Amino acid sequence: DIHDWIKDPDEIYRRSFATIAGEADLDSLPADLRDIAIRIVHACGMTDIVADLAFSAGAGTAGTQALAKGAPILVDAEMVSHGIIRRRLPKANTVICTLNDPAVPATAKALGTTRSAMAVDLWLPHLDGAVIAIGNAPTALFRLLELIEQGAPRPALVLGFAVGFVGAAESKEALIQSGLPFIALRGRRGGSAMAAAAVNALAGGLA
Amino acid sequence: DIHDWIKDPDEIYRRSFATIAGEADLDSLPADLRDIAIRIVHACGMTDIVADLAFSAGAGTAGTQALAKGAPILVDAEMVSHGIIRRRLPKANTVICTLNDPAVPATAKALGTTRSAMAVDLWLPHLDGAVIAIGNAPTALFRLLELIEQGAPRPALVLGFAVGFVGAAESKEALIQSGLPFIALRGRRGGSAMAAAAVNALAGGLA
Repeated sequence: DIHDWIKDPDEIYRRSFATIAGEADLDSLPADLRDIAIRIVHACGMTDIVADLAFSAGAGTAGTQALAKGAPILVDAEMVSHGIIRRRLPKANTVICTLNDPAVPATAKALGTTRSAMAVDLWLPHLDGAVIAIGNAPTALFRLLELIEQGAPRPALVLGFAVGFVGAAESKEALIQSGLPFIALRGRRGGSAMAAAAVNALAGGLA
Repeated sequence: DIHDWIKDPDEIYRRSFATIAGEADLDSLPADLRDIAIRIVHACGMTDIVADLAFSAGAGTAGTQALAKGAPILVDAEMVSHGIIRRRLPKANTVICTLNDPAVPATAKALGTTRSAMAVDLWLPHLDGAVIAIGNAPTALFRLLELIEQGAPRPALVLGFAVGFVGAAESKEALIQSGLPFIALRGRRGGSAMAAAAVNALAGGLA
């Protein structure tokens, strides 16, 4: 009813989180993953994604500590960047998206790869200890794993939320097998909103 | 396998759209909704959302014609704005997001409403004939419907993809009952990526 909607933002958050806590299987998660899971569920409206969450031991803590030390946040899409709430970041951490770098389109075309994968090569100077949030492109995640296998510096945490029908599930499985610290959503589902929500939770929990 | 991923962007699109066409029930949709449905499915990785799509007769055509005439695109979140591919827009249509207008936070607080709802009041000078894309906030959609009921100018099309647990399903049902031209996803699911994908499809189909 358009004459009777809840306007109070605090009340909306309270009811949302209560619904999520009531429906999602949060007890199956380690303590440092629960706020992250709640925020991801909140971002997508689906409580059943908790069953598809995968993570390395201590991943939540690793991400929070990296941000607290000022780690940069590398993202594969402008949508992820614009979902990250800057005022929550503990050290005014830099959010870097290289997708629209002027060098990317021509270089990607010349190399026969996607702009998303090409943009990852421009992350190299920032990779060491970074928090990486992939919310769109499987090819970005594949390229990241390739670079690290070839000896690139290791990030503190990789958030794997690539989405879609070609390579999304496969790239996230490759992340899970990579030995890197990670939080990922198995399967085709994912997206910028989930990736940004994970960063926001690492930065400030549910506050 | 990180040594054997598909790099060619055209091939990725081709395989993605083929998978969607094979799995999603597109024949249940009118012709002017099919490309939109494909792009929305592509954005979220879920073929089953087609069953939850709702739309008024001729909604796809109405949106495409409005954009072709240069209609502005009003969005409730920066993430929606950054998902819209500008080069596809037929008349370099303006994309307007008022959420971060400096007047919004204090006014919203004073009126006891959300920033998202408050930001919609700033759409009034642009509403007439606009294409509206709601990809996040149920309160933005509720406020829009309130304003129109009170006599505000009518948009050409409302894309209703509000997401979440409090008001998302309800605001989209209110849109469906409103008499406005609309395309919406029933239920809790939605998001900025789906809203932007709908705009991108209205602007340029699958090209």
